[in-house]
Amino acid sequence: MDKQDKLMIIPLGGLGEIGKNLTVFRFGDDIVVLDCGLAFPDEDMLGIDLVIPDMTYLIDNKDKIRAVVLTHGHEDHIGSLFYLLRHADVPVYGSRLTLGLVEGRLKENNVTDRKLVPVAAGDIIKAGRFEIGFIRVNHSIADALGIYFRTPVGVVVHTGDFKIDQTPVDGQIIDIHKFAELGNQGVLVLLSDSTNAERPGYTKSEFTVSEALDERFAAAKGRIILTTFASNVSRLQQAINAGCKYGRKVAVLGRSMVNVVTKAIDLGYMSIPEGVLIDIDEINRYPANRILILTTGSQGEPMAALSRLAHGSHRNVELNPGDTVVISATPIPGNERSVGRIIDGLLRLGVEVIYEKSSGIHVSGHASQEELKLILNLVRPKYLIPVHGEFRMLKNHGKIAEGVGIPRENIFFGENGHVFEFTAETGRFAGKVPAGQVFVDGAGIGDVGNIVIRDRRQLSQEGVMIVVLALDKQRGIVVSGPDIVSRGFIYMRDSEELIRDARRVVKEVLERGENKPITEWAPLKSSIRESLGKYLFGKTGRKPVILPIIIDL
Amino acid sequence: MDKQDKLMIIPLGGLGEIGKNLTVFRFGDDIVVLDCGLAFPDEDMLGIDLVIPDMTYLIDNKDKIRAVVLTHGHEDHIGSLFYLLRHADVPVYGSRLTLGLVEGRLKENNVTDRKLVPVAAGDIIKAGRFEIGFIRVNHSIADALGIYFRTPVGVVVHTGDFKIDQTPVDGQIIDIHKFAELGNQGVLVLLSDSTNAERPGYTKSEFTVSEALDERFAAAKGRIILTTFASNVSRLQQAINAGCKYGRKVAVLGRSMVNVVTKAIDLGYMSIPEGVLIDIDEINRYPANRILILTTGSQGEPMAALSRLAHGSHRNVELNPGDTVVISATPIPGNERSVGRIIDGLLRLGVEVIYEKSSGIHVSGHASQEELKLILNLVRPKYLIPVHGEFRMLKNHGKIAEGVGIPRENIFFGENGHVFEFTAETGRFAGKVPAGQVFVDGAGIGDVGNIVIRDRRQLSQEGVMIVVLALDKQRGIVVSGPDIVSRGFIYMRDSEELIRDARRVVKEVLERGENKPITEWAPLKSSIRESLGKYLFGKTGRKPVILPIIIDL
Repeated sequence: MDKQDKLMIIPLGGLGEIGKNLTVFRFGDDIVVLDCGLAFPDEDMLGIDLVIPDMTYLIDNKDKIRAVVLTHGHEDHIGSLFYLLRHADVPVYGSRLTLGLVEGRLKENNVTDRKLVPVAAGDIIKAGRFEIGFIRVNHSIADALGIYFRTPVGVVVHTGDFKIDQTPVDGQIIDIHKFAELGNQGVLVLLSDSTNAERPGYTKSEFTVSEALDERFAAAKGRIILTTFASNVSRLQQAINAGCKYGRKVAVLGRSMVNVVTKAIDLGYMSIPEGVLIDIDEINRYPANRILILTTGSQGEPMAALSRLAHGSHRNVELNPGDTVVISATPIPGNERSVGRIIDGLLRLGVEVIYEKSSGIHVSGHASQEELKLILNLVRPKYLIPVHGEFRMLKNHGKIAEGVGIPRENIFFGENGHVFEFTAETGRFAGKVPAGQVFVDGAGIGDVGNIVIRDRRQLSQEGVMIVVLALDKQRGIVVSGPDIVSRGFIYMRDSEELIRDARRVVKEVLERGENKPITEWAPLKSSIRESLGKYLFGKTGRKPVILPIIIDL
Repeated sequence: MDKQDKLMIIPLGGLGEIGKNLTVFRFGDDIVVLDCGLAFPDEDMLGIDLVIPDMTYLIDNKDKIRAVVLTHGHEDHIGSLFYLLRHADVPVYGSRLTLGLVEGRLKENNVTDRKLVPVAAGDIIKAGRFEIGFIRVNHSIADALGIYFRTPVGVVVHTGDFKIDQTPVDGQIIDIHKFAELGNQGVLVLLSDSTNAERPGYTKSEFTVSEALDERFAAAKGRIILTTFASNVSRLQQAINAGCKYGRKVAVLGRSMVNVVTKAIDLGYMSIPEGVLIDIDEINRYPANRILILTTGSQGEPMAALSRLAHGSHRNVELNPGDTVVISATPIPGNERSVGRIIDGLLRLGVEVIYEKSSGIHVSGHASQEELKLILNLVRPKYLIPVHGEFRMLKNHGKIAEGVGIPRENIFFGENGHVFEFTAETGRFAGKVPAGQVFVDGAGIGDVGNIVIRDRRQLSQEGVMIVVLALDKQRGIVVSGPDIVSRGFIYMRDSEELIRDARRVVKEVLERGENKPITEWAPLKSSIRESLGKYLFGKTGRKPVILPIIIDL
């Protein structure tokens, strides 16, 4: 069988991680890209703003890309599209809300004039030899889609991020009939969301949040401040509904929240009765119990509005005892401490804070184990690739699949860059393509690599000590210095003696026979680093970065 | 009433945090210190090794300190004792295991010849005008004590870290009779552990872990590697018991684990049948299903044994598919990601990993809400100071106390350094003493402060660019440079153009009329910083630390 008759599925992001989802589908010379997201940096990626997938493979094959298809509008699914579209002018298909959010991101990155094609659940498009269909799913953002591909070797289904919400707030239940129909017709491969594969049972319906909010809103005496992910339009709608019920005006605080609410109202995904929405500057005109503020910062982001409110440092809004803050979100792993600090800050202000999972004011947007089983049983795929999760989540998803009868050897655990190759009958691992992470730092994409990060790490731990010498090149002798400057090592004003001694150590190096006259700089610099490093470690137990700089005259 | 007739309770650590517990009890000229712990640095305390409480108040009053009393041997309760004892040679009272662990810490810090006095539950000592009694409690380390103080104004009870374990592994149930007896006699103030004040219900008994371990050990086919906090002697004993039951030899891996196990066996807190304990180098002599390894690293510490095992980089031990790793611990907030990465690494090796809370292989060492209620109802204090917790935990504890009938105005929420003053009838907030955190970095204690940390933060984010000029002082002109060196900003070898342009920008500053001749350095340096900063930000979107250094000749 010819290579041309095989389907290749290549995840370039989203395996072994929750972030920067990007999956490539290739049949012969036709490539379709599903999602194109970013990740937020780990704590050890110092100074990095964002992380995007390595797209070398796509850029090398850009003439073959027929389409990008998007499942939904979260950053981890759309956030690196600007970069792909800079290199490849290909049409992008997504739901209206998704494209609305994409437009904003592209504009911020000066990518314009690209072909954005709105699709709706039930639509079918053609892209090379792929026929691509869109399926309504439930998730923590409106207008989320699953996507299936009819290919010459069979049907592939990708769930996107999903949950099965039997009572969604917008009435738009996941199209379980379509999944059933595809399953009946026969599905070769399923790619399915593994985020909550460690969680037993069912994820609760978004609707259950309404009751919990209603109870809290009924009891609140002062202002109510509610925070959630800006993109969770259904959650915001529920908060607005509860606010309206108790006669509160609604103000929106925080740039990203304002953006999303504006976009969602424009596109008809959110409705606010006439006269309810007020400007944040107007809130003081109303009694406290007539105000609901929707705001950003549910993950403890230090620059977001909620953090400023908790520290009493917001320009326009001040919280008072008797106000209620509702944190309608769960901290993403790694954010627990910063969220905890914000809660503590709010409590110190005398504010009531509703934050516990058990309080019912938040539900997940991802399918738990029973939902994963249901999708597996509906779709009945021959092969499963668990996607969208840390490795342990993928493995858990695999166990669940074995439990409903998928043979172990038909479940593929991959890493980003792995190529999975399918014929109508077979599936196998078939090598690797370049994959990895590319750092975005300020305006630079990919120019900060491991060496720069390693330097930042060293600097961050013990700071830097700079030793400057001026050298008379002809005579090979030092005519000025050593001068010493340090940052992040010790407080220089309190350490005159140490600095003086450090200078003495460098002078001793210069006095050594082998350094008179000075002909080679490299060995001199390393002697300085070594002697000074030893001295400083002995005195302080620390190892700053030592930078000898020699000026020649 | 004279000041001399009042009791002062002054927490210097442990309020608004879980770490570095230290509480001062003062009556007239007599001071007793309860616990003397450390905290581990937050992720934003760059390069800091440890954090200890500001002990200015104690050092200023060192002649008044009659005793240090310790509740148990965890680092957050004993880890800064070396620093206090360096400044004040006072007797230290604690249980045998606690003092065993204290000895090790003191030796590491070159503090010797101090008076360590072993006490047992039920003992009573005198220290100035305090009569001090010790009460057995349950916790995740053996030999933990609650402590009460009989003072001229009344009785004060401090629970220490505790839970109520009705079926403890060592058979030593918390002395609820003593708490009841004190409550009957009348207690003025209770200080009680707030760690789990957010958790409803009861904390499970340590004993329940036995059953869960047994089930896992029965099913394991290869080696078993179990990790938990080294100091959790009861947990280790259970693991050893289960290992013995299934005919496994026991090896211990990791310095701190070896230390604790040796100490615990010496002191009789742990028992291992003859011939079961083997050296880690001997494990290859036995079949995989005859080996149990106890190891460190349950919190994802990158240098600990488990992390090395997960990355296949341990010198002596290699894991194989079929081995089972049991992580008998919960990640402390902030450690979720590193623990997650280790689990993923182990799973990639094909190792079975048991890690979920729901798997029953770990229980907390702190009292949940129902246990807190029981202690409150047994002790029936007039006043409550919730201790040992983030502010939200203290507040939750307060709510619980109100629920069992303690008047709101008798519940004191403090910050470290707050003075609470009691007579036989009254209690009130009575000002503050110096308190805060002192950073330990290498050999230095307190020499790294906010300025150094701020510099490290700047360096860590965007690195540093150093500009060196040599100046002819007499003529006020530059004779060499500008030379430019950077670290952690960009990869210099790929950025020749940027460096060349940066040099040009500095030259332009030097060419400006106001800088010819150069008489003042400070304004020149700030012009360089400003112009170069603007240029670099425009080009890269980054703001490195800019350090102009001028050498005069």
